[in-house]
Amino acid sequence: MKASSYLIPTTKDDPQDAVVASHKLMMRAGLVRKSAAGLYSYLPLGLRILKKIENIVREEMDASGALEFQLPILTPSEIWKESGRWDKMGKEMFRIKDRHDNENCLGPTHEESFCVLVKPMVRSYKDLPINVYQIHTKFRDEIRPRFGVIRSREFTMKDAYSFHLDDASLDETYQKMRQTYRRIFARLGLATIPVQADSGNMGGSASEEFMVVSPIGEETLTLCDSCGFSGNIEKTPVVKKTSLASKQEEESIVETPGQKSISDVAQFLSVKEEETLKAVALSYDGKYVLVFLQGDRELNENKLKNFLGANELRPMGQSELTRFGLIAGFIGPGFAESSDLLILVDSILEPNFPYVAGANEIDKHKKGVQLSKYYDFSKIQTLDLSQSKEGDPCPNCGHALKAEKGIEVGHIFKLGQKYSKAFEISVLNDKGKATLTTMGCYGIGVNRCMATVIEQCNDDKGIFWPVSIAPFEVCLVSIAKTQEDIARVGEVYSSLKQAGIDVLWDDRDLGPGFKFKDSELIGFPVRLTLGKGFLEKNEITILNRKTMEEKTISGSDPKTLIEEINSLLRSLRKELDDRTKEIG
Amino acid sequence: MKASSYLIPTTKDDPQDAVVASHKLMMRAGLVRKSAAGLYSYLPLGLRILKKIENIVREEMDASGALEFQLPILTPSEIWKESGRWDKMGKEMFRIKDRHDNENCLGPTHEESFCVLVKPMVRSYKDLPINVYQIHTKFRDEIRPRFGVIRSREFTMKDAYSFHLDDASLDETYQKMRQTYRRIFARLGLATIPVQADSGNMGGSASEEFMVVSPIGEETLTLCDSCGFSGNIEKTPVVKKTSLASKQEEESIVETPGQKSISDVAQFLSVKEEETLKAVALSYDGKYVLVFLQGDRELNENKLKNFLGANELRPMGQSELTRFGLIAGFIGPGFAESSDLLILVDSILEPNFPYVAGANEIDKHKKGVQLSKYYDFSKIQTLDLSQSKEGDPCPNCGHALKAEKGIEVGHIFKLGQKYSKAFEISVLNDKGKATLTTMGCYGIGVNRCMATVIEQCNDDKGIFWPVSIAPFEVCLVSIAKTQEDIARVGEVYSSLKQAGIDVLWDDRDLGPGFKFKDSELIGFPVRLTLGKGFLEKNEITILNRKTMEEKTISGSDPKTLIEEINSLLRSLRKELDDRTKEIG
Repeated sequence: MKASSYLIPTTKDDPQDAVVASHKLMMRAGLVRKSAAGLYSYLPLGLRILKKIENIVREEMDASGALEFQLPILTPSEIWKESGRWDKMGKEMFRIKDRHDNENCLGPTHEESFCVLVKPMVRSYKDLPINVYQIHTKFRDEIRPRFGVIRSREFTMKDAYSFHLDDASLDETYQKMRQTYRRIFARLGLATIPVQADSGNMGGSASEEFMVVSPIGEETLTLCDSCGFSGNIEKTPVVKKTSLASKQEEESIVETPGQKSISDVAQFLSVKEEETLKAVALSYDGKYVLVFLQGDRELNENKLKNFLGANELRPMGQSELTRFGLIAGFIGPGFAESSDLLILVDSILEPNFPYVAGANEIDKHKKGVQLSKYYDFSKIQTLDLSQSKEGDPCPNCGHALKAEKGIEVGHIFKLGQKYSKAFEISVLNDKGKATLTTMGCYGIGVNRCMATVIEQCNDDKGIFWPVSIAPFEVCLVSIAKTQEDIARVGEVYSSLKQAGIDVLWDDRDLGPGFKFKDSELIGFPVRLTLGKGFLEKNEITILNRKTMEEKTISGSDPKTLIEEINSLLRSLRKELDDRTKEIG
Repeated sequence: MKASSYLIPTTKDDPQDAVVASHKLMMRAGLVRKSAAGLYSYLPLGLRILKKIENIVREEMDASGALEFQLPILTPSEIWKESGRWDKMGKEMFRIKDRHDNENCLGPTHEESFCVLVKPMVRSYKDLPINVYQIHTKFRDEIRPRFGVIRSREFTMKDAYSFHLDDASLDETYQKMRQTYRRIFARLGLATIPVQADSGNMGGSASEEFMVVSPIGEETLTLCDSCGFSGNIEKTPVVKKTSLASKQEEESIVETPGQKSISDVAQFLSVKEEETLKAVALSYDGKYVLVFLQGDRELNENKLKNFLGANELRPMGQSELTRFGLIAGFIGPGFAESSDLLILVDSILEPNFPYVAGANEIDKHKKGVQLSKYYDFSKIQTLDLSQSKEGDPCPNCGHALKAEKGIEVGHIFKLGQKYSKAFEISVLNDKGKATLTTMGCYGIGVNRCMATVIEQCNDDKGIFWPVSIAPFEVCLVSIAKTQEDIARVGEVYSSLKQAGIDVLWDDRDLGPGFKFKDSELIGFPVRLTLGKGFLEKNEITILNRKTMEEKTISGSDPKTLIEEINSLLRSLRKELDDRTKEIG
């Protein structure tokens, strides 16, 4: 491809609304343009990258035995009502009425559609397992689209759904997808960590997110340097620490005027925050719960929601607090029990430790509060309800955990029978008995992968693409001005094309400095310079964009030149191949 | 690919709602499934075909120098308001409000989006011409989706838009696209006719539709066997015929009680319909027009709309007729003239012929009405306003025209400056002067191409795919049951795969009759049968699906077998290649 008949609209300045490297660089390198909030157009260079990513995803999915489909984006409300998600999906789902007043949505995910489609095609256990996928446009009406294509409102997703006779088969496909995902990300040049994740409103039982560690990540990971444990902080178990010195103290009431927050109270009474009791009073789905946590801990709402099977969780309002005799800021053991109020105790609390707690009176706390004196620990629910944090012991080996931000690029779920039940998808087993199927689902954000690679592969000059998804593998920069010189460069270009090299010849009528900067900004893995040295002495300089290492060789013999280029490309490919092979 | 790990959900019965061959066969062959009215899911076999079509379109567009983009489906209402189409597009455009109450639509076409995107990238005449395209999902809320994917509500379209400094450059790209389209359709195996077309509400000046003659077509074409003229009936000029014998007759009033229609009056008075005058009284955009036509002719509303520059056209209501002194069924020259009522006379009417016409009184007509006695033909507007029909003289050579139904698979337009003006897209010309650009646009319905190929390539057994877009080029049908026999067939399959042959091995546990029927229904161009003859004597039968010609050869030597298959595939490819080469 010649740059003069291509479109390379690079810009010098960062766009005003861009705060992260990938967003800035995608705009500056002319890969995308913003059309509206959270909506991006892909320009030719950007689309080449996106298509290369899609192809890698497709190749690996096909190799895993999955079958590619393409389903409508518009999906009728009926099927969402059948699964119960029409109301649950909330404002993130774009809803649209057609001219006949039928309600539809722009599919944010396709469990329902694939269930309806696959159901009549699977009748016997012999038709299972089956893993179906598509690579297609998805829509989510994000309240705050941001970071360019990382969190946008319209994006390309690879979504797959597998159907199984039993859990063993589901687990086999789940493991195969795990392997397939690791291979895909390795081929894209992405270093990912699979972490145990909360499965959100997908209704699943087990799930893992594929995370790329990055300071711009919207998720927080917990990592253990010692045993290699990795988790999403939302799902990392918090295990008991023994940092509290055993202590004896009689219960007594102290005046704590205006000291409502844990930190205020701890400071006021000169105790550590972890020596205080935090009480969180919540309403969920029309019912009520009160949770006791160690003072220095935050409630993990997902853990609580999962335990309660709750859809919505919100703090109690004043009238609700009053109803249960609770006083905001001063709640502690000892208020009147009610059969309408569930009491839960975080499992890291010590039943016999004398905590500081609210006295259930305004401006008063109690010291020396032992939970065991108020609650029967053989009956009361104790469970892990607090949020993990950096420095917590690894749930696996006890070593201190690190916390890192991460970008989620893929997600695999064991859905279980939620959708099979809703859509009554059953097959005859080998004994002729109707058996409800079980399901898995597996997603990859294609555009997000593109941006995440840039987050990992950029320097002060711009992007350096992994060779597997570079828009062109080689960029040829020439400074020829005369017809004769242009013809000489043209011969080199033609010989590269004939050798099957994926090359862009920057033949634009621009200065060499400008072209160099463009090639480094866009990030072609290999650059050939055919400058003065070429015109005078047939010398060609080969640059490895990532390392910025240069090598000057003679360009007299096209064969030697091509072998030099191919040798560099091979070594770049080998890096990715080696990582992929390691996975198996 | 082995059929046992693939999905081939063929069915025996036609779906109830399918009335055309392509719809029936796409469903029966397991290529698509309906998800809702006008919404179809592509199954693996169908998607392979669709992707092959997309790739042919992409290859030819790229070869023409066009650049591929991908734009958001969601487009903000602002840009549609800028072009003036937000109101014009009517109910066919899906409109959607986002969570912030901003109005958007699901792009039914992308002139506006591409204009906004391309505008800042073209500054000088050196940046032109540029031809940009995408292959992406489009939405139209059809009032009556029908014929399966031929008229659906969500579909894949290739849409291209070119920008030019002047008309000469536009014409050059337009001709290149015309050539490119002919090559694309030839490669798909489609016989298309480019016809002059009405440009609808696209705002253009010249346009051609690529039509495939088919009884299920929704458009009517006029074709001349003599000179090769082809047109859309909506735009074919009607030229004067001299079939009316010259005749002298005095004007006289005749009683025609209850005879309102042309055919009633003609029969009642024993004259030919073409000897009567038809009067059509209409309202358009708040104004009024009365059109005189030859009695046997229908008004062509598009011709009238284009002349008037009208958006809406409707018959006058009773109060409007009364206001102008017109009596429905009995309108004729001689009513009181009004400056508010424009009178138009179809150009095939003879000013001096004594027609039968309404007498402007109930139940009365006049005989011997000469238009020239009522209207001054040096002042009155005469123009071509009637609908062309079979048997009309060819506007080019005078030979009688044929009328045929046609399916539109592509459309090229010269848009002119409509959008350049709306979006103020100008560049500096070679003298440094700002110059408004001019535009073209070019569309292909990808799914519709798939269905249209089936309309052209089917027989009582099913589909016979052109080899260029067949889901698999070769289907291998085996009846092996024992491990040993399966292994022998497997060896043949492996040798074909190694030779790069695109083969599906139907290794399903089904009877041979079933497999034969499936392969003929789905329409793989070449079938290999490894039946009893193979197991006993190493004989393999090769079938050409289109001609149903069979040839039995020895399968002992894989080389010979592969050469036989490749030879047949080459001859199938050559048919398409030859047609493509003819175009140039």
